[in-house]
Amino acid sequence: MDTATPVETLRVPIKLGDRSYDIHIGCGLLGDAASWAGLPASSDALIVSNTTVAPLYAARLAAQLAGRHRRVLQIALPDGEAFKDAATLGLVYDRLLADGCDRKTVLYALGGGVVGDMAGFAAACYMRGVPFVQVPTTLLAQVDSSVGGKTAINHPLGKNMIGAFYQPARVICDLDLLDTLPERELSAGLAEVIKYGPIADPAFFDWIEANIDALRACDKPALAHAVRRSCEIKAEVVGQDEREGGLRAILNFGHTFGHAIETGLGYGQWLHGEAVGCGMVMAADLSARLGLADAALVPRLQALCRRAGLPVQAPALPLARWMALMRGDKKSEAGEIRFVLIEGLGHALVRPAPDALVAAVIAAHTAPA
Amino acid sequence: MDTATPVETLRVPIKLGDRSYDIHIGCGLLGDAASWAGLPASSDALIVSNTTVAPLYAARLAAQLAGRHRRVLQIALPDGEAFKDAATLGLVYDRLLADGCDRKTVLYALGGGVVGDMAGFAAACYMRGVPFVQVPTTLLAQVDSSVGGKTAINHPLGKNMIGAFYQPARVICDLDLLDTLPERELSAGLAEVIKYGPIADPAFFDWIEANIDALRACDKPALAHAVRRSCEIKAEVVGQDEREGGLRAILNFGHTFGHAIETGLGYGQWLHGEAVGCGMVMAADLSARLGLADAALVPRLQALCRRAGLPVQAPALPLARWMALMRGDKKSEAGEIRFVLIEGLGHALVRPAPDALVAAVIAAHTAPA
Repeated sequence: MDTATPVETLRVPIKLGDRSYDIHIGCGLLGDAASWAGLPASSDALIVSNTTVAPLYAARLAAQLAGRHRRVLQIALPDGEAFKDAATLGLVYDRLLADGCDRKTVLYALGGGVVGDMAGFAAACYMRGVPFVQVPTTLLAQVDSSVGGKTAINHPLGKNMIGAFYQPARVICDLDLLDTLPERELSAGLAEVIKYGPIADPAFFDWIEANIDALRACDKPALAHAVRRSCEIKAEVVGQDEREGGLRAILNFGHTFGHAIETGLGYGQWLHGEAVGCGMVMAADLSARLGLADAALVPRLQALCRRAGLPVQAPALPLARWMALMRGDKKSEAGEIRFVLIEGLGHALVRPAPDALVAAVIAAHTAPA
Repeated sequence: MDTATPVETLRVPIKLGDRSYDIHIGCGLLGDAASWAGLPASSDALIVSNTTVAPLYAARLAAQLAGRHRRVLQIALPDGEAFKDAATLGLVYDRLLADGCDRKTVLYALGGGVVGDMAGFAAACYMRGVPFVQVPTTLLAQVDSSVGGKTAINHPLGKNMIGAFYQPARVICDLDLLDTLPERELSAGLAEVIKYGPIADPAFFDWIEANIDALRACDKPALAHAVRRSCEIKAEVVGQDEREGGLRAILNFGHTFGHAIETGLGYGQWLHGEAVGCGMVMAADLSARLGLADAALVPRLQALCRRAGLPVQAPALPLARWMALMRGDKKSEAGEIRFVLIEGLGHALVRPAPDALVAAVIAAHTAPA
């Protein structure tokens, strides 16, 4: 932890009319009263965390909130994507109701994307909607799942199938919380940072390549810039398409192949970011084979993913399984798989692709069984 | 069924910006292509009904939709408020996913308030939101639960605790469907019609008193006016306060006492409308005791409820149980019960009341144990 480098707190405004909110990015935010100023208070708070993160940070957050809320309750959910389900979500409702929490209760999501998804979805549905604040503790959640208002749980038949679009009242990205993040999870988060280069910002892509080592070393100024720029790009896209009518789908670059990897192996084998990293390389290759992107993008993206500590070879799954899993993707329409593809660096589009080309891409990027 | 009296189809527009929709009110609407014209089509349809209503009307609805959708699927849920829970909701998701329904699937809620609440909440959450159409088959659902976008399921610790505000694409109120409605359920629906008089429209209150016998006899022109005026009043209130910030709470006149009756006896003992009818009499009495309403309102409302076939004496519950149940109401804030009260006929407000007065009201309207 580099306390010698002060990082100025940045605020990224997310403009969504009466659902607008700010993302705070900086160091020491968990212990800074300014992080919570102006948020709904007075009633109860429920800190939703998991059994890994709660012992590290829940007491500090609770201490900060104690003066603001009548009661500060806590719940630590079992950790992991495997628990992002209806049964675990039910634990949050049970707790809220058992403790008589009213509709002014504020939920604080303290954890990674899974906690954010579950606390956010619980907030969306508890008494038809209570405020919630995101305090993401992973890089992935800071750059991705805490921006855009997507909340969801998994269903045995598909990932993120049950959920809501629901905006937080604020997102607090305290970079100091990343100091306790396992290296593998930091790499998974970098996959979503890298993503923003090819789809939206070639200069940012260059910057990531130049700073990938500093990012992996948890350098705070580098992380601050990466989180800020990722949030800004995502905010711009989401601001134009809050409910995923069209444009927003480009944020799913790498996710069609990636979701197939995650679901095909069973949740929890590959981290979400790892699957997305490999999925981006595959989607870039598909873009190149369709003549949309320069073929040089494929080895460039592959090299950057490798330097980020990400796997770039997909697991061996039968081709029919790949296709069935991708057809189950939410972007599919009338059974047709739709891919996010790069059309010239910095620009993405969504379209279907011939099965034969998809099969060739899968074959080219799959580890031998 | 009075086929001799033609009823012109009425359309009540609900203006909520990009979530606006129309309520169609009339006879023979289920078999009229105009009912569905302009709605999203092309992908799959899922008719969500229950085991009582599906045998009566699902085949007719399916036949109407067959030409509009790729597939028309059906699910018949177990009938009754007791099944408005997470487990039954899960059956809808299971069906949608097992059949590979995409995010353009349209859900049709064919049933009463329970079916509307569950199909609406399922539509709100399936893939973070798919369109749905309400086809209410009870008077209660036609005048109340199909307007305003409230969807929810119950939790063992409280009614309607988990849900979403989610607007339908259209509501089709076919008055002919009320011909198969049991008399007791028609009466329960009349409670919500009566409600609109004291809170918003003294002239409508007079009209209901003059037409209560025609309404109980299922006279179509009378029903059309009652449904239309109820929807108009509710639409006006909801249009000013879609997410229940303040004004909208007046629609819960009778519901604070009513929910206590329903929950206290266990769901299914009293119908929702029956509990609301008795709750309105109690809330009117509380209003009178607080000097807000004329004392004459109490016997007047009581007499009208009796003529509507509604019970006007509350079941015997211990006072502490009443208070605990009402404190669990969603309108409560910081443990303080808030009642919808009549302040002069045609005007309602929401405020707390002294416990002693509340206790006196309960004692005055409770059947001896």
